[in-house]
Amino acid sequence: MRIKRLMESIEAANLDAYIVSRESNIYYYTGSISGGFLLAVHGLEPTLLAPSMNLAIALDKAKGCRVEPYGSSNLLDQIEKALGKTNPRHVGFDDFTIDMSNRLQKRFPEMELRSSAEITWNMRRIKDPEEQGIMRRAGELTDIGMEAAKEYMKEGVKECEIAAEVVHAMMKNGAGDVAFSPIIASGQRSAYPHAGVTERKIRRGEFIVIDIGATYREYRSDLTRTFIVGEPSKKQIEIYETVLQANEEALPKIRNEAKGSDVDGVARAVIVEAGFREYFVHGLGHGVGLEIHEPPSLSEKSGDTLRVGNVITDEPGIYIPGWGGVRVEDTILVTSDGPEKLTRFDKSLDGMRV
Amino acid sequence: MRIKRLMESIEAANLDAYIVSRESNIYYYTGSISGGFLLAVHGLEPTLLAPSMNLAIALDKAKGCRVEPYGSSNLLDQIEKALGKTNPRHVGFDDFTIDMSNRLQKRFPEMELRSSAEITWNMRRIKDPEEQGIMRRAGELTDIGMEAAKEYMKEGVKECEIAAEVVHAMMKNGAGDVAFSPIIASGQRSAYPHAGVTERKIRRGEFIVIDIGATYREYRSDLTRTFIVGEPSKKQIEIYETVLQANEEALPKIRNEAKGSDVDGVARAVIVEAGFREYFVHGLGHGVGLEIHEPPSLSEKSGDTLRVGNVITDEPGIYIPGWGGVRVEDTILVTSDGPEKLTRFDKSLDGMRV
Repeated sequence: MRIKRLMESIEAANLDAYIVSRESNIYYYTGSISGGFLLAVHGLEPTLLAPSMNLAIALDKAKGCRVEPYGSSNLLDQIEKALGKTNPRHVGFDDFTIDMSNRLQKRFPEMELRSSAEITWNMRRIKDPEEQGIMRRAGELTDIGMEAAKEYMKEGVKECEIAAEVVHAMMKNGAGDVAFSPIIASGQRSAYPHAGVTERKIRRGEFIVIDIGATYREYRSDLTRTFIVGEPSKKQIEIYETVLQANEEALPKIRNEAKGSDVDGVARAVIVEAGFREYFVHGLGHGVGLEIHEPPSLSEKSGDTLRVGNVITDEPGIYIPGWGGVRVEDTILVTSDGPEKLTRFDKSLDGMRV
Repeated sequence: MRIKRLMESIEAANLDAYIVSRESNIYYYTGSISGGFLLAVHGLEPTLLAPSMNLAIALDKAKGCRVEPYGSSNLLDQIEKALGKTNPRHVGFDDFTIDMSNRLQKRFPEMELRSSAEITWNMRRIKDPEEQGIMRRAGELTDIGMEAAKEYMKEGVKECEIAAEVVHAMMKNGAGDVAFSPIIASGQRSAYPHAGVTERKIRRGEFIVIDIGATYREYRSDLTRTFIVGEPSKKQIEIYETVLQANEEALPKIRNEAKGSDVDGVARAVIVEAGFREYFVHGLGHGVGLEIHEPPSLSEKSGDTLRVGNVITDEPGIYIPGWGGVRVEDTILVTSDGPEKLTRFDKSLDGMRV
């Protein structure tokens, strides 16, 4: 079904063939986690070339295409065989390494290779009802992980121990994986948007940024809350409430036909007015799906327009180097009735105190 | 220190400059998990261009280089600024996208860009004493994860529940992340080398392949054991003992100056002699370090020669589609005294029965 739509897109783009190699795209089109190369050639049955070690799973799972194996030494031979006598001239691809591009060009000098990742992204960014259902569950599992973090959090526990409880709770309930490496960032480390996890111990009166996600049936979710053990200071309250307001004011704007730059602007204006302009160091949000960062994007320079079926994060933050930071993030589905929160964990300041 | 060695390698390769962009290489050279672009230019102080959202962590962590921020719109300007008046002609790089390569070529038409990933891999594949110490701990944490899997495993529990216990145990003890998405493959799914995790329940008399790894201070480990709940059949015993023998016969061959193809050959001969040639569908092993798959490799076509300081897996397997599979894997450090096992979990058939 998706492969059929891919064939139509190829024709519309005046391509004779298209080669899919990004692992998440292989899954998107075929349902197989084998990786490999999917060859969609005008007038031929699509062929998935699966790495020979993953042939069994590809044969069991791939739908809508023939499956053939390849090894490191015969990939180009297998591609040639799959192309048959079609001799395609205009060939699009989603994502090649320079090495792969050079090897193909050498073997098929008459091919005009054209980077056309947007053909697959344009399909992937609109989640169909089945994908939406899976992503609802990924969001629920992520909420369960955040609940575990909150329950376990207290003075003296290590960041990595909190991560352990989060991942345990998500997987126990059905997550196949984490959506990305968890971020548990306490104290000054909370000023790093991408902080990872260390063995540092939580201290009273510090912010703790928890940024986590579950993967369910290959689809991801993304949720951040910022906690504090004990009483927040006046400055901490001011910064938290500013970020929360930015998150909440942007939320109703996440709807069909909204411009990504406008939605970012709504949240950014709240932070700028509060005097923290230079401390909001990233865009407001990114698409989520089979990957954790996908189109479309919400940022000052985004050229994207939101559509029904997009799934996107709403994640303003204020990060003060040497002091600490706050981020409040939800994953949102754009529906014809407006935004639907796929993550629903409480974000009131009271709910953040443990 | 490592950057200094990089500068020497560049000179030896007749390059005027080198641009590092692979995230793990940025960490390897600078100690910063910020990502970005490290510009090593003959005669200039090295510069790390950090994504502006990660500027704070780069400023705190990066050693041996200047740090400057860049945004999506001024990356090429910042590169031009960092190059100053050096006007480098021969410029190596580790890992560019086609898009990045094209953008650079357009901006600096006189540059001759040369893919030179081997310059960094040649350094990274030899782990220094500090790296070896970290990887010992990553191995211990992975053994702890396997112990948790064994303790929890019984008829009726789900694959994802076992994964939850594994990851919990590793992170609780200090792992910052998993080294890769865990594989918990039971029943017929054990015939898939890359199977992921599902909500399938463990049944009596089936193989369960557990392939897991911990990440400790950015370094990874890799360990597989194949369990069975209840009594193994004669065929299961035969296949398990064959794979175990292949693993054990290859182990003492993992030493300085051994050829990767020869080590693979030792394990493969055991499996071929037992009549399972076509069911050992991958190479014997791969290097491990900051990434889970690195050079060198152990395979039929490997051109690599092992050296003291290499860390590599020893992981033969037999996979029978529709029936099941077995893999036994350890992570091994090549020392001047021979192989040192970084993962030590029991692998006797008796130890695999739960």
